[in-house]
Amino acid sequence: MATTPLIEKPQHRTREKPEDNGKGVAEKHQCDVLVVGSGIIGLSTAYRIKKSNPGLSVLVIERANAAVQGETAKSTGAFRDCFTSEVNRLLARSSIEFYKHLQFDLGFNLKLELIGYLWLLTRSQLQEFEFVEEEMRSQGISLRTYERSDLQEMMPGLVLDPASEQSKLIGLKAVHKGIQGLNCGTLAPELLSKFYESELRKLGGEFQFGTVVKSLRLEPKNPLDLPGEPFAWQEKVFTGVETDRGFVAADTIVLAAGLETPFLLDAVGVDCLTKPKKRQVFRIRGEAVERLLAVKGFNDQNTMPFTFLPIGDIHFRPVLGERSFWVGAGDNLGRRFHLEKEATAEESFYTYSICPILSEYFPCFAGVRPASSWAGHYDVNSLDGTPVIQRLSNCILIAGMSGSGIMKADGIGRVAEAAFEGKSEAQLYDGSTIEVSRLGLTNRAVGKEKFVL
Amino acid sequence: MATTPLIEKPQHRTREKPEDNGKGVAEKHQCDVLVVGSGIIGLSTAYRIKKSNPGLSVLVIERANAAVQGETAKSTGAFRDCFTSEVNRLLARSSIEFYKHLQFDLGFNLKLELIGYLWLLTRSQLQEFEFVEEEMRSQGISLRTYERSDLQEMMPGLVLDPASEQSKLIGLKAVHKGIQGLNCGTLAPELLSKFYESELRKLGGEFQFGTVVKSLRLEPKNPLDLPGEPFAWQEKVFTGVETDRGFVAADTIVLAAGLETPFLLDAVGVDCLTKPKKRQVFRIRGEAVERLLAVKGFNDQNTMPFTFLPIGDIHFRPVLGERSFWVGAGDNLGRRFHLEKEATAEESFYTYSICPILSEYFPCFAGVRPASSWAGHYDVNSLDGTPVIQRLSNCILIAGMSGSGIMKADGIGRVAEAAFEGKSEAQLYDGSTIEVSRLGLTNRAVGKEKFVL
Repeated sequence: MATTPLIEKPQHRTREKPEDNGKGVAEKHQCDVLVVGSGIIGLSTAYRIKKSNPGLSVLVIERANAAVQGETAKSTGAFRDCFTSEVNRLLARSSIEFYKHLQFDLGFNLKLELIGYLWLLTRSQLQEFEFVEEEMRSQGISLRTYERSDLQEMMPGLVLDPASEQSKLIGLKAVHKGIQGLNCGTLAPELLSKFYESELRKLGGEFQFGTVVKSLRLEPKNPLDLPGEPFAWQEKVFTGVETDRGFVAADTIVLAAGLETPFLLDAVGVDCLTKPKKRQVFRIRGEAVERLLAVKGFNDQNTMPFTFLPIGDIHFRPVLGERSFWVGAGDNLGRRFHLEKEATAEESFYTYSICPILSEYFPCFAGVRPASSWAGHYDVNSLDGTPVIQRLSNCILIAGMSGSGIMKADGIGRVAEAAFEGKSEAQLYDGSTIEVSRLGLTNRAVGKEKFVL
Repeated sequence: MATTPLIEKPQHRTREKPEDNGKGVAEKHQCDVLVVGSGIIGLSTAYRIKKSNPGLSVLVIERANAAVQGETAKSTGAFRDCFTSEVNRLLARSSIEFYKHLQFDLGFNLKLELIGYLWLLTRSQLQEFEFVEEEMRSQGISLRTYERSDLQEMMPGLVLDPASEQSKLIGLKAVHKGIQGLNCGTLAPELLSKFYESELRKLGGEFQFGTVVKSLRLEPKNPLDLPGEPFAWQEKVFTGVETDRGFVAADTIVLAAGLETPFLLDAVGVDCLTKPKKRQVFRIRGEAVERLLAVKGFNDQNTMPFTFLPIGDIHFRPVLGERSFWVGAGDNLGRRFHLEKEATAEESFYTYSICPILSEYFPCFAGVRPASSWAGHYDVNSLDGTPVIQRLSNCILIAGMSGSGIMKADGIGRVAEAAFEGKSEAQLYDGSTIEVSRLGLTNRAVGKEKFVL
């Protein structure tokens, strides 16, 4: 029973000093900017912040023993500029321009190949597409259309009108046209990451690997040294992170930890609109599909574009260096949100959800089993499929890549850096600008993506 | 290694028949409309659907042994029409009108008392409020303003200018004005729920209590009777729910299960933007605060309005019948998302996060410990704090009440019913209309709530 005032002036205040944990690892216990996660987003952001603020110490903390060992390493590395949502378009287009600059102007090899994206469309899908085509063209998106006869001629192996018993049961429709996005293609995520990592190191950015961030430490801005702080009414700041190697204090925390980000934020009651969904890739190679790797007319590489079938979001990309195709499919309704510790691809997924359709349109895939496979996770923002970048007290959270982290990473790093600086607008590589708040949680205004086939 | 087509025509198709599980409970295994959850939202929605579709069988499944045993029962039952967001205003205002109609026209006692909401504002908060005041008044929201002298006169116990050492440490500011929303007040959630429950029963709606829904069953619309269905490319429907008493088949499923809803939806990979956050209520009674129950001038009941302090979202409502106040506080940043099985209120939360502030503005609360307390959870939609109502195949999901389920329940039931009927627009009780898609996930357009103090 307390009848006297409960809140009293603190007598003294000392900053807790973390002790050496005896593991003998070089550990930092304090930095100006702490970036959690060394995937492509963490690296791109850390690089931009360090570059603009050379006087600040920037430390990247990563659970693995090297950078880029998580979801980034599992990406198929495809990129496109074909979006109707302005935010998506700005982020992707400026990032692609920057990647082209790196490779073609600066000679930093990203294995970037402008092979294009090819959507094989049914008649009804074409109607949907025509609805947004004008808008996309007027925004400078390069598109090329292929008639049935073009497609048949360029890809003799393609079945335009699947008619087998299986096709009828599945409900496959005829391919009516092909649409190719030209400013689209593939690159090697690990090489792009390497660029940001090495540049960050040159600038003096530091890394601490093998360190698991367990939680964010939230403290009162004006502490009273009472047990149980922070209280509900107190203004709060993030003072650092608790790791399996002790506390690391930081003036600013950048959360770019992929699917660990919602986990860390849930613990402080912040929703970043992001959930994990497994995605699988199957590697198909061999004589039967070899012919499809060499297809003329779509690009300078004389290969297939990154190609989408009309159903099931089934897609494949050629990987010339290994003479194979990487095949995948989007499965949305029915695929639970779940983060698997050691995710593996499911053979049955290829057998039943991909192969029956793929082998009807491209019979060369029939009977070829995957040579290998792997699985990762999308960090899905189901609301609008667009990244979230938000300042929250002294924390910048970056989440919800929804599978397009690679293709937007440079733009995201620049927007996150602007959020760090407290700027209202970010300048992107191609000279365009974007209001930082549009990507935030509070005044989100990303626009609806209409190009969804 | 399969070289022949994998998908073959099903030879026969039989609907699985659930067996009696021997528990001796009257169980239904089939219905037209299955409503999961018998809180205020499930009841309101089930009632509207049954009323508009008397020929359909409507079954409400509930884990508890009676209706309204979950979060609805823990609500403080306050309602207000003071919103700037059109969606919030339409839902709340029409619901309040309906509740008034029930009590004042039809004589169905809801213990509805129009005691008003009172916001005690500092000078800077008043500036924010003035920014939206005109908009609210023009939308027909009844507001009354109190000067400092009014407040002092009406509530002799109020300290307008807290000046103690504790006040300074907390950073309390002077109360500059009071704003009262007049078309606001309190009601008894269990009585309102009772109305919908009894009306639903009269119409022939059925209940199955003591039944835990464990998962949604998702099947292909055109099944092939192959193992592992549904495949990614198949169109899918919800055929029913798995419960601890067996499978229940339904043509339509209405998910109104509060914080079980995101759990059930996560398993099929659908994000309803909803997470659980604990909220606590402390009951304060006794001679010291008794005087504050009887305050003249604010309302016909001659009591305090539901009152908000200028800091920490601290609020209290008078409960005349039990001669007490129910006191609470919003704690957002720092309060983790978590669903406690048996949530209880934390004494320390009252001691440190509520009492120091409450007792500075209203010293009569100083030294009075809670007579009792309880805790529940908000089903928080962090994005916009507004309910989500979305049709997904043959499932209607209703989530994200964010603490305002009671005050919007009638409108929500009507919008959900319109979603069930496939109507684009819902007709609300007060004659206003609302586009159903505005509350959905796909084309969400709820508008930004600007009245957040």
